[in-house]
Amino acid sequence: MMSYLTFVAMRSVRKEASGKILSYSFEEFVDRVKSFHGFGAVGVIVGGFMVNLAYKHLPEKGLFDAVCETPKCLPDAVQLLTPCTTGNGWLTVINVGRFALTFYDKETGLGVRVFVDPVKLEAWPGLKAWFLKLKTKEEQDSDRILDEARRAGAGICGVEHVKVVGRIRQKRHREGFAICPVCKEAYPVADGPRCLACQGERLYEAVDREVPDR
Amino acid sequence: MMSYLTFVAMRSVRKEASGKILSYSFEEFVDRVKSFHGFGAVGVIVGGFMVNLAYKHLPEKGLFDAVCETPKCLPDAVQLLTPCTTGNGWLTVINVGRFALTFYDKETGLGVRVFVDPVKLEAWPGLKAWFLKLKTKEEQDSDRILDEARRAGAGICGVEHVKVVGRIRQKRHREGFAICPVCKEAYPVADGPRCLACQGERLYEAVDREVPDR
Repeated sequence: MMSYLTFVAMRSVRKEASGKILSYSFEEFVDRVKSFHGFGAVGVIVGGFMVNLAYKHLPEKGLFDAVCETPKCLPDAVQLLTPCTTGNGWLTVINVGRFALTFYDKETGLGVRVFVDPVKLEAWPGLKAWFLKLKTKEEQDSDRILDEARRAGAGICGVEHVKVVGRIRQKRHREGFAICPVCKEAYPVADGPRCLACQGERLYEAVDREVPDR
Repeated sequence: MMSYLTFVAMRSVRKEASGKILSYSFEEFVDRVKSFHGFGAVGVIVGGFMVNLAYKHLPEKGLFDAVCETPKCLPDAVQLLTPCTTGNGWLTVINVGRFALTFYDKETGLGVRVFVDPVKLEAWPGLKAWFLKLKTKEEQDSDRILDEARRAGAGICGVEHVKVVGRIRQKRHREGFAICPVCKEAYPVADGPRCLACQGERLYEAVDREVPDR
């Protein structure tokens, strides 16, 4: 219910003037990107226009989750503009390397996918070179790319209606926890007799355990 | 360089009074959690204390990336309190089901890992029941859990010095992009002759392509 209310609150911005990114002006959004993402990454800014475009095609009511098809930049646009975050489970990253995002109804899987269409990039040489990595960072003119991103908005994107597969929709609910006999930490009992890290998913070469607290 | 400066700016809060979560009071942090995460999730609040504890053990200088060992809650504490986000690549989630986070030097892999220690949970029955899912949501007293979280702070945690494995440290740099002959979208050329989605990583049951833009 909480997420529904949050979403309704967000949806009320749908009637804002175009050129905006939901309730933000372009400049306001760039400032938010700098603050959250660390710098004014073009990918997050394009992602903002993509979220905005997706919202225009979403039904008025519903509980929507998000999928990003790349971990690069797009997840931060979703996290800045919607209630979906990595930590609350409403945003999932499935890295298939495409610059695309989908909002879908948790119950039905029906949703709206927005992607960058390479054909539409042809009208924007700076954006195209940035998007397809045709030039090195040093060769690129970041002011030009940002200006093209602002003017192009979601004009470089396509929209599809999709139905998300059950595998992505179904969140695993952890049934209970056990204490791992190796690391002595709690882990989801469904993972087996040890936690996944102690089953072999090695994260650390060396562990110096345990440091005094302060 | 930018991330370094951001980090130095954050590190300057290290000398704040204890009980705080970096520069935030407990109440301020809970408000930030509600705003970003959608509700005042105990997991993000505990995560805030964990980030704070990790910072106390980090060296004064360095470029640090983050790893969360679960996608539940912890990534949002990291994203709220540090420059590391899902979309900028400085935060990685490796889901081995443990409630633990690590900040590590990008160059050396050396870092500090903070985890919840089940032994230390024994002093906090409400937190213990929440953490190990010993009670249903309906049976739990959320005010009590939140109060215990506030009073326990990082007292339920352990700290380790670790060296993160190269596999996690090495970010894949995409060498170039191709247009997928199936979906006609751009994808990292290193993924093969088609994008990963068109190689079989199926995300959608149905795609209705392409909807008019507005």
